[in-house]
Amino acid sequence: MDRDKILLTPGPLTTTLRTKLAMLRDWGSWDSDFNEVTARVRRSLLKVIHGEDSHVVVPMQGSGTFSVEAAVATLVPRDGHVLVMDNGAYCKRAAKLTSLMGRSCTVMPFDEATPVSPVALEAKLTEDKSITHVVLIHCETGAGVWNPLQAVADVCAKHDKGLIVDAMSSFGALPIDARETRFDALIAASGKCLEGVPGMGFVFIRKAVLDGCAGRSQSLAMDLHDQHSYMEKTGQWRFTPPTHVVVALAEAITQFEAEGGQPARLARYTANYQTLIHGMSRLGFMPFLDPSVQAPIIVTFHAPGDPRYDFKAFYAAARQRGFILYPGKLTQVETFRVGCIGAIGPDEMEQAVQAVALVLEDMGIASGEPAI
Amino acid sequence: MDRDKILLTPGPLTTTLRTKLAMLRDWGSWDSDFNEVTARVRRSLLKVIHGEDSHVVVPMQGSGTFSVEAAVATLVPRDGHVLVMDNGAYCKRAAKLTSLMGRSCTVMPFDEATPVSPVALEAKLTEDKSITHVVLIHCETGAGVWNPLQAVADVCAKHDKGLIVDAMSSFGALPIDARETRFDALIAASGKCLEGVPGMGFVFIRKAVLDGCAGRSQSLAMDLHDQHSYMEKTGQWRFTPPTHVVVALAEAITQFEAEGGQPARLARYTANYQTLIHGMSRLGFMPFLDPSVQAPIIVTFHAPGDPRYDFKAFYAAARQRGFILYPGKLTQVETFRVGCIGAIGPDEMEQAVQAVALVLEDMGIASGEPAI
Repeated sequence: MDRDKILLTPGPLTTTLRTKLAMLRDWGSWDSDFNEVTARVRRSLLKVIHGEDSHVVVPMQGSGTFSVEAAVATLVPRDGHVLVMDNGAYCKRAAKLTSLMGRSCTVMPFDEATPVSPVALEAKLTEDKSITHVVLIHCETGAGVWNPLQAVADVCAKHDKGLIVDAMSSFGALPIDARETRFDALIAASGKCLEGVPGMGFVFIRKAVLDGCAGRSQSLAMDLHDQHSYMEKTGQWRFTPPTHVVVALAEAITQFEAEGGQPARLARYTANYQTLIHGMSRLGFMPFLDPSVQAPIIVTFHAPGDPRYDFKAFYAAARQRGFILYPGKLTQVETFRVGCIGAIGPDEMEQAVQAVALVLEDMGIASGEPAI
Repeated sequence: MDRDKILLTPGPLTTTLRTKLAMLRDWGSWDSDFNEVTARVRRSLLKVIHGEDSHVVVPMQGSGTFSVEAAVATLVPRDGHVLVMDNGAYCKRAAKLTSLMGRSCTVMPFDEATPVSPVALEAKLTEDKSITHVVLIHCETGAGVWNPLQAVADVCAKHDKGLIVDAMSSFGALPIDARETRFDALIAASGKCLEGVPGMGFVFIRKAVLDGCAGRSQSLAMDLHDQHSYMEKTGQWRFTPPTHVVVALAEAITQFEAEGGQPARLARYTANYQTLIHGMSRLGFMPFLDPSVQAPIIVTFHAPGDPRYDFKAFYAAARQRGFILYPGKLTQVETFRVGCIGAIGPDEMEQAVQAVALVLEDMGIASGEPAI
């Protein structure tokens, strides 16, 4: 039937009809009504991290990666030196964009199945004094690892290094408190745990470092300092905002707040995660990560060992039954991923597990058990 | 009453309900259904400029300015030298982003009330052999001037210089034929004359120069060559696409084609323009530009000379009556602007003129006649 499929992907994800309905109007980007929407979104975002006193938030057009690139370009001086703690694909992407824009970049590799190590970071910062900034991915969506933000932030604070946190897939769900955790920049996007539609990101910048960021960016479009100054002065975006995406985000945030904010969202996603894990275990599937390092955002499963398994066929069959899965992003092991986020609850996760069970049956696969 | 205001702005603009309704679904950015939407949009865009044989088209997240920056970064070698033909605010912006990213940039100033001069360009290219690329804004929205694309392209072709055309506010309405007009890149966006919602741009790149563009961009997010290679290989966007914006654009393009494509759109906008100009003349308003250089996209009017005129009050009163006007962008003269584009016809333009008449009456202004 012509029914919307459920997106078990880490953004774009399933949004509520109410959020999408907000897009049925056109808004003048120069108009006061729209400026008020932008202002309201910014106020609400700051509240999520209790950052009203310490941070500003700067919305940015484009996907989340644009905001990551903008944060590095705006925060790191041209002669700065960035250390990227790398335990996955999104870390590698952050390192790549940092090097490309001409900033010195050192990559510190970690196993993709484990969190990055604050102890190793401490040693590195002690050894190499030239490092000015550290980049951390809060939840590495490549495998789904929950990285130790607080411990990393503490090490950075101790050594007085700027910390840039990519919180793309964690913001709004995992706890982040700017009053307790020191970071110079933290990045997220509209189409993730706030359950808006994709099309814009936003970057929290610590007020103490904001002024120093003027003129650092070699990109006009991605200069967060310039975007912020203009917005403070005029209430407007510098360049055409994705108006419909912005109003959808405003509507999504209203629902986020009504649900109970970050703690409620974490509780729902955790319930989704547990339903998924238990259901998939019953079918023999094995998660890639140890539960102790797994964020309840996206789960990587080993591919079944059965020779009849083929990801494309598996994906297509699950899709046919109404569920969009996500391919794996690990280089060494065959996996697939299932997102736990979006406007879905345990009922949808149960249905997804049931769909996977039927798919295995159709494919003649007795168990999801991996080969290893 | 709670009725949508009509946006007389050059994007975001008024879109059809049908276009907005397309955003009521969520799409997986990795899914084949969505890939097919992207592919369809790209095929349709190439048809608009008859560029199937000569060009590729690369969609890009963000506002139109992001695509302009991406085009310069991708097309111009790091040691290239860009000449910007400057007759307005958007030309100055293009020059600024070019310099910021570290490309050598020369600005050739022209009066903002006149088109740029191909003769002057020819002289400049003859004199300065170091210039590698020329940037032209097709319709300078600052004042509304229609710049001579064909003549500029001919000069660039003769001197074998790369031409980068910002066709943001002209694409889809003014004629552009890649079979007759040589350009290396041409940039436009979703929320302009195609009447989609804002949130993405797209860049046509001449196939003959495409391969040479690899590795030129210092920005990962804005690397059009990389975006294109990945899209050709996978059918997907490199980074999360603004899915709802993309499907809205696809729906807008379907309506664009059904209306009769670019010639039909130009005819409707020309009718809008004429209705506006005649109506406003009756009220005493004087357009800033000579009609011979005016594109039927956006019209700059001199502010009324009456001392009771105040733009903020004028804007607010027109808004109250359902019409969103646009502020002027000229530095020397007080003006305001009225867009002729969007999902509106001469009826709406008549209503707008009538609203302006009532606003003048309310403000006690006898005529829109300027002071000069």
